[in-house]
Amino acid sequence: MNRVDGRKPEDIRPVKITKDYLIHPQGSVLIEMGNTKVICTVTVEEKVPPFLKGSGKGWITAEYSMIPGSTHARKFREATKGKLEGRTHEIKRLIGRALRSVVDLNKLGEITLWIDCDVIQADGGTRTASITGAYVALVDALNKLVDKGILKALPIINHVAAISVGVVEGTPVLDLCYKEDSNAKVDMNVVMTDSGEFIEIQGTGEESPFNKAELISLLSLAEKGIDELIGIQKEALGVEI
Amino acid sequence: MNRVDGRKPEDIRPVKITKDYLIHPQGSVLIEMGNTKVICTVTVEEKVPPFLKGSGKGWITAEYSMIPGSTHARKFREATKGKLEGRTHEIKRLIGRALRSVVDLNKLGEITLWIDCDVIQADGGTRTASITGAYVALVDALNKLVDKGILKALPIINHVAAISVGVVEGTPVLDLCYKEDSNAKVDMNVVMTDSGEFIEIQGTGEESPFNKAELISLLSLAEKGIDELIGIQKEALGVEI
Amino acid sequence: MNRVDGRKPEDIRPVKITKDYLIHPQGSVLIEMGNTKVICTVTVEEKVPPFLKGSGKGWITAEYSMIPGSTHARKFREATKGKLEGRTHEIKRLIGRALRSVVDLNKLGEITLWIDCDVIQADGGTRTASITGAYVALVDALNKLVDKGILKALPIINHVAAISVGVVEGTPVLDLCYKEDSNAKVDMNVVMTDSGEFIEIQGTGEESPFNKAELISLLSLAEKGIDELIGIQKEALGVEI
Amino acid sequence: MNRVDGRKPEDIRPVKITKDYLIHPQGSVLIEMGNTKVICTVTVEEKVPPFLKGSGKGWITAEYSMIPGSTHARKFREATKGKLEGRTHEIKRLIGRALRSVVDLNKLGEITLWIDCDVIQADGGTRTASITGAYVALVDALNKLVDKGILKALPIINHVAAISVGVVEGTPVLDLCYKEDSNAKVDMNVVMTDSGEFIEIQGTGEESPFNKAELISLLSLAEKGIDELIGIQKEALGVEI
Amino acid sequence: MNRVDGRKPEDIRPVKITKDYLIHPQGSVLIEMGNTKVICTVTVEEKVPPFLKGSGKGWITAEYSMIPGSTHARKFREATKGKLEGRTHEIKRLIGRALRSVVDLNKLGEITLWIDCDVIQADGGTRTASITGAYVALVDALNKLVDKGILKALPIINHVAAISVGVVEGTPVLDLCYKEDSNAKVDMNVVMTDSGEFIEIQGTGEESPFNKAELISLLSLAEKGIDELIGIQKEALGVEI
Amino acid sequence: MNRVDGRKPEDIRPVKITKDYLIHPQGSVLIEMGNTKVICTVTVEEKVPPFLKGSGKGWITAEYSMIPGSTHARKFREATKGKLEGRTHEIKRLIGRALRSVVDLNKLGEITLWIDCDVIQADGGTRTASITGAYVALVDALNKLVDKGILKALPIINHVAAISVGVVEGTPVLDLCYKEDSNAKVDMNVVMTDSGEFIEIQGTGEESPFNKAELISLLSLAEKGIDELIGIQKEALGVEI
Repeated sequence: MNRVDGRKPEDIRPVKITKDYLIHPQGSVLIEMGNTKVICTVTVEEKVPPFLKGSGKGWITAEYSMIPGSTHARKFREATKGKLEGRTHEIKRLIGRALRSVVDLNKLGEITLWIDCDVIQADGGTRTASITGAYVALVDALNKLVDKGILKALPIINHVAAISVGVVEGTPVLDLCYKEDSNAKVDMNVVMTDSGEFIEIQGTGEESPFNKAELISLLSLAEKGIDELIGIQKEALGVEI
Repeated sequence: MNRVDGRKPEDIRPVKITKDYLIHPQGSVLIEMGNTKVICTVTVEEKVPPFLKGSGKGWITAEYSMIPGSTHARKFREATKGKLEGRTHEIKRLIGRALRSVVDLNKLGEITLWIDCDVIQADGGTRTASITGAYVALVDALNKLVDKGILKALPIINHVAAISVGVVEGTPVLDLCYKEDSNAKVDMNVVMTDSGEFIEIQGTGEESPFNKAELISLLSLAEKGIDELIGIQKEALGVEI
Repeated sequence: MNRVDGRKPEDIRPVKITKDYLIHPQGSVLIEMGNTKVICTVTVEEKVPPFLKGSGKGWITAEYSMIPGSTHARKFREATKGKLEGRTHEIKRLIGRALRSVVDLNKLGEITLWIDCDVIQADGGTRTASITGAYVALVDALNKLVDKGILKALPIINHVAAISVGVVEGTPVLDLCYKEDSNAKVDMNVVMTDSGEFIEIQGTGEESPFNKAELISLLSLAEKGIDELIGIQKEALGVEI
Repeated sequence: MNRVDGRKPEDIRPVKITKDYLIHPQGSVLIEMGNTKVICTVTVEEKVPPFLKGSGKGWITAEYSMIPGSTHARKFREATKGKLEGRTHEIKRLIGRALRSVVDLNKLGEITLWIDCDVIQADGGTRTASITGAYVALVDALNKLVDKGILKALPIINHVAAISVGVVEGTPVLDLCYKEDSNAKVDMNVVMTDSGEFIEIQGTGEESPFNKAELISLLSLAEKGIDELIGIQKEALGVEI
Repeated sequence: MNRVDGRKPEDIRPVKITKDYLIHPQGSVLIEMGNTKVICTVTVEEKVPPFLKGSGKGWITAEYSMIPGSTHARKFREATKGKLEGRTHEIKRLIGRALRSVVDLNKLGEITLWIDCDVIQADGGTRTASITGAYVALVDALNKLVDKGILKALPIINHVAAISVGVVEGTPVLDLCYKEDSNAKVDMNVVMTDSGEFIEIQGTGEESPFNKAELISLLSLAEKGIDELIGIQKEALGVEI
Repeated sequence: MNRVDGRKPEDIRPVKITKDYLIHPQGSVLIEMGNTKVICTVTVEEKVPPFLKGSGKGWITAEYSMIPGSTHARKFREATKGKLEGRTHEIKRLIGRALRSVVDLNKLGEITLWIDCDVIQADGGTRTASITGAYVALVDALNKLVDKGILKALPIINHVAAISVGVVEGTPVLDLCYKEDSNAKVDMNVVMTDSGEFIEIQGTGEESPFNKAELISLLSLAEKGIDELIGIQKEALGVEI
């Protein structure tokens, strides 16, 4: 099978993670997966949402946005329209869950970590790239809190990365670019730990339902991709955490 | 294992689908799954969204809401707050995708079917009950369009139902009530056709990741539940469609 | 005069009040007046609005909504539009005033009672049915607070119910259904106590003004209807309060 | 009985209506009732709302606002808050109904008359002063349309004015100032034609219910006030219309 | 050069400042510059924005609005639309900066002065008239705080007024009316103190750029106008402050 | 005088303009001025705002935003809050005016050019960097329209760039970084053409007024800076236009 960009079904796109991409936030990376580019930043706020006040626990919350020039047709600006669209809500909730799942919130103390994922160029897989990049920014920010003595130890439970898989022209493929994504019969986003366990699976067969065999083969592809991504994350972090 | 309401892990709650629950909409049902009660209505609008104008195709869109008295602590009214919360966006998009996936939109003509799911009492599984109930209201509404000669044939491709599964105290269980849902380590919603294929899988292990074996056993439970639900739907519709 | 549903001018529609309709709220009823059906719930919140803080007084506030499937043409969802329409504001303020007027707020302590009226089927008179039903839910909720020892005595000053009257085809009639309401020259909503005194009168002759004689005869009809409704409320409450 | 400003119970405050108060709108007046001052303007728009397109009928719609400096404590600006409060909705709907009731909309042609009532100083009775003043601005604007040949004849059916009545310290009084209004047990706004018929009655006994005898005496006071106001309106218009 | 209203290029329009225009606010004026009429009020609030809490400093904030009848074509009501337009934001920020610049905020104590400028008739120069009028209302309100002993001395650093200048048909002119403003190639608003220093300069040559010589001659005109306005302000205040 | 970053008063920061920074928009640049980094994109839309329909004229409109990670303390996301703040309105209007002033809109045909300026890192001067960068993206996009034959010739009237000047510790300086900006007594943004004429001057002496001599010396600095910037723009465009 010939993929539109010459990759084999089990290939991910070239990935580049630039740490310390911005000067202000506690953690920041630019993640590039092929033509998809996302700035992921982590900012520490010295308070927690009302439901955690007095609990000693911390919180992680995520926001996601695309700049208007990131897409082929100009993406309208949600700030101008005055509300987030449903897709944005869905994605920011997914990112938040994924990152909370790998941090021991009890060890954070009463702080909130704001994860911001700003897509500057989109070519498919922006939500999974956001998770993969944000994880690196998050560990970086937490390391700085450890260095400053604010945290005693890095409260990370698992490595986490995310990738898309799908069925395109009858073939299960890994890491879909936009063109593939628009033609996929099945479209699945997988968030996974370095021990090969699932944090989240979201698979949709809106165009055509899929059976258990297809599911299994998609999950195997995802596992391969996650494994590679976690290797790249570790390299970017420059430490064996 | 003792479930809080005495069910066995593989049991669904008592289900009751009341067709023609309201007098105004083209299709309407009250679905009750245990204490969860949702009014599902279908209204036909004689136009389509801008992106389908002139295409000859129809559209299906869904909205979801909970009345303030449906939950233990009063649910604030989104209309008063002036915006939908993220969870609502997530659910209405899920319901819309699920129902679009089983209708041949090309055969609808340029009409929009509005699916409204209004939860009047919540005890877990409101989004899956919404899909299961809305499918019956949808078929009923479409049957009326066939009867009136507006449609030549019922444009239904598959039966569809939805159910939740999860891992509670280490055991995979089917159709979680609210109490189980709040304690579940893994929480998954499955939308499935009568041929046992998946329309949508959304599984989250925010509290604790899950492995492939657990996934497989959860999906088997879901399959059993869906099978029973589709039987109940058929009975409610009173016809072998 | 033949009314569209066979009633005589001075007849109300069949009324049914189902107490304890929902399991979560402190008070809840389903009220049915002919085809009009409203779920009325009462929830207790352990705080008061800012202007009452420290006063020792309680507050009662009301919200009102119609589900999209409750009307002939689908009612757009105010939550989706992001704001309440003027009619909704008018009605929620009316319900709030009516119920506050019969409760001794000084004896509540600093709590807020949230009255929610959710119309699931509309056939005229939804605002008056809301008041009549909400009163029963309110007394029920207050009785529970008395039973729990939170209140010393039931802080109810008067029974209250509400009904519509109007001039249809030249004849004053009681309890208008939707069809009558759309053809009425004069349209009036009356909120009244069991001692025959007025809490609120709102009469409109937008289509044609009305004189004092018409007013008097409409108010007499309203008095008759209120009397019957208060009887039905007492029966539903099952106690002579 | 001594009223706070020395009036007798049946006295209205000094009224002054300045026609052609502004240079831009088709009709404009400043109405002063005691310390209450409202600018009422009428603007003609060459189109109608969607539900009247093609009907040949016109429409009248009203908006109402208070400038921040109009009240004792600064009135927050609804434009800054981003939404109208319930009271504003209630009042603009009342003004709209009152003015539509005295115009033959069929004779307007497909135009919309925008009534704007901007309170620059408030001392009770702003909604009734708005109606009384807006009627003069409306007739003035319609007269200009007749003069220009756009309308064949003045499409006015009745004169209309509005006034408040209430029970203050046990006595029914006419045209309440703010101080009286805050202490009134019963508060009623009456919109009436020159032939003594009612367009709208809105009476509230939130603090204490009222009986039929009180109602009758309040309505008689209102009738007296309306009669005087219509005289002043006619004078301001300078013609016997 | 003939200006549309017969003035010479260096003439301002007739100015009238009516102090104590309204009864409720601490300071209030009606300023009229030709046909432009603005009500400027100042209200004292006994608290400061969060960023000043505990600082001992006060704050001044401004809001600006036009009533719908103030313009030739009806100005839509921002409160109804639910948001302020960009122009309004621009103007309220300008007014706020101008007035803060002449008050010693350290000497106010922790209070907020709300400046409200409500345009009741617009014929060009509403933002500059707002500043000129609001200054008088502000000094008046501060004088009252001094009289009451709340402030020890008037915390005014400079007199301030504002005026527009522009290039119309090739000629630099002072105090543009609306007709001139719409035809101006260059349009500039100048806020200046009585010592001839600039608080703010905003000049735009959207239609055609301007050079330094034109700038100098516009600023000289502005200086002349400001000088006259400050004289009129002093007269209105009736004291040499 | 020692500036915080070692520059002389008349020095601009290092500027880098990367053309074709993104793949989707018709024009796109990354402009870096010291640590300030802005992505400027230009998208062509095949329609115009209502007020230009049928005019044959085109339009240019601008939007501006900062990503949350661009500032020291996290910048709240306007899309989440649901409205643009006043500063954003002010800046987007400034950018729009600046770019419209150098394009012959009559020669565009009925298209709208959307200018989007997204600040990814802020260190002072983001609005002026936005204008300077957006101009390059705009010319690039227009060149492509010429190449495609959609435009006959480049409809550019003037080169334009923008820069900030201010008085810091008594010294007029060019191109203020954030630290300087927060301490500046006078703060001015200047938009200028390559022929040394002004498009826009916005100068504020909120902290302390400034006199004509200071103004002149600030404008001379600005002229020097603009001259250098226009040289860099030309280089980036790679053509003598």
